[in-house]
Amino acid sequence: MAKKYVQDYMPDNVCFGCGTQNPDGLHIKSFIEGDECVCVWESQSRYHGWETVINGGILATLIDCHSMATALSAAYDAEGRPWGSEPVYRYATGTITVRYLKPTSNEHPITLRARLVSMTGRKSQVHCDVFVENEKTAEADTVAIRVMEGRPESEETPFH
Amino acid sequence: MAKKYVQDYMPDNVCFGCGTQNPDGLHIKSFIEGDECVCVWESQSRYHGWETVINGGILATLIDCHSMATALSAAYDAEGRPWGSEPVYRYATGTITVRYLKPTSNEHPITLRARLVSMTGRKSQVHCDVFVENEKTAEADTVAIRVMEGRPESEETPFH
Repeated sequence: MAKKYVQDYMPDNVCFGCGTQNPDGLHIKSFIEGDECVCVWESQSRYHGWETVINGGILATLIDCHSMATALSAAYDAEGRPWGSEPVYRYATGTITVRYLKPTSNEHPITLRARLVSMTGRKSQVHCDVFVENEKTAEADTVAIRVMEGRPESEETPFH
Repeated sequence: MAKKYVQDYMPDNVCFGCGTQNPDGLHIKSFIEGDECVCVWESQSRYHGWETVINGGILATLIDCHSMATALSAAYDAEGRPWGSEPVYRYATGTITVRYLKPTSNEHPITLRARLVSMTGRKSQVHCDVFVENEKTAEADTVAIRVMEGRPESEETPFH
């Protein structure tokens, strides 16, 4: 069965990290596997920080957008309605902490495994682990804030 | 007097965020102003997260690389020797926490003001505030680890 990606249910998304509508973006794709939200991403040499090692900020971008997708899909699931159904939700990052445990290769697929830690109203906490070739290289904790309920045209202000 | 940029004293730097040797990178430039290390950066539309708002991961990339430049210049200064003199130092991020206080515009220059909080051996702590049009939009705390002493050819392992 074809995988169902969270980002395909985020209309009008121009985000550099996860927007299907950004031709120059990273285009991460997040899917559910058991109780985790998973993303597998392959880099390009331009995104290295050191030769062969991914730039820490680009890794933070992957983690950030993937953690928002984790919070987003969980919010729809908690309401028992399809991803992308009205009102359309979007999340933005309140706080992110990334711990770089060892160099993360820029030359092999990078796997992010995230899980919802808590959800209280508009605020969710997400933990994300990063792996390359089955070795954990980084971990992150993120606070996600629901900043939109409805289409962007509703002019609700992003961020809290 | 022409500004003196930390990144011009980082030989062979291919980093996406701060490398002069990465043709596709963000090319941040950090300079000293009083007791702060300052970076002013102008974005492109591709790096937005929402229309007109910078992607949080790209903002983290700017903060990350600028904080490493802050730690790097402070390390040379502490030894009373010129930036880039032998042994050449480089720093990598151990941990970064970014707090997004309000949306950061992607359409105006972004100013980062960082300062060294502490330096103990190979480990430094840096605080960084982010401003757009004189309004603070984000803040970050970073742990920087000195991962190289000498040129890359010395084959010392990046990261701790």
